[in-house]
Amino acid sequence: MLLLNLDHVALAVHDLDAALDRFLRLYGVGPAGREVIEEQGVEEAMVLVGGSRVQLLAPLDPDTPVGRFLARRGEGLHHVAFAVPDIDAALAHLEDEGAELIDRVARRGGGGSRVAFVHPRTFGGTLTELVEIP
Amino acid sequence: MLLLNLDHVALAVHDLDAALDRFLRLYGVGPAGREVIEEQGVEEAMVLVGGSRVQLLAPLDPDTPVGRFLARRGEGLHHVAFAVPDIDAALAHLEDEGAELIDRVARRGGGGSRVAFVHPRTFGGTLTELVEIP
Repeated sequence: MLLLNLDHVALAVHDLDAALDRFLRLYGVGPAGREVIEEQGVEEAMVLVGGSRVQLLAPLDPDTPVGRFLARRGEGLHHVAFAVPDIDAALAHLEDEGAELIDRVARRGGGGSRVAFVHPRTFGGTLTELVEIP
Repeated sequence: MLLLNLDHVALAVHDLDAALDRFLRLYGVGPAGREVIEEQGVEEAMVLVGGSRVQLLAPLDPDTPVGRFLARRGEGLHHVAFAVPDIDAALAHLEDEGAELIDRVARRGGGGSRVAFVHPRTFGGTLTELVEIP
């Protein structure tokens, strides 16, 4: 078993403030953290739900991956993220299994984590992130 | 806080056996349960990942909601499900908040649960399921 947890499921939204306000009114829980990740061109907020998190992603600019996703498909589910104990070992294993890695080497994610994305062609048409939490 | 947990994230796939085999090889974990839900026109399998689950959904027939989803969008993220302590109270609250409920009354889900779906227009373009686990 390579996976520790379903770390988060991410939704792309146009307006982060509006989405957080609506999530709070609908489900009674507000953000635990909020961060601009310039390298990914997003502002992200995490909402704790039990042992997992809902991540809301808003683009910093239309010409970013999340901006292009919104232009193409509108708001919706963007990716799923699994927590792993050792992201380097996980990436090596996935490469052995023929996975198509967007990041062959882990890079910086939110909250000081190390992250890597796996192409949707690898499994179930689903953009998948691995997260090693410090 | 209306929510207990991120119960599962669901992926629509064409071939349930192939998807389960691939998930096992990539991530080292197999299905904890598998069930045909005739009323929803799907066969579903649950894979335990930490305190949450990944649900794989395959249509029983092309002319079902998941069959039409696959024809329109291909394999990919289908919905997210939150566990709630009291689904009747949750539905009443969501209706008060102007949510668009696909199921105004909970119906039978997998594993003896009671479930209800909330329309993607309600939040972040995301089909959302509430699950009360017995």
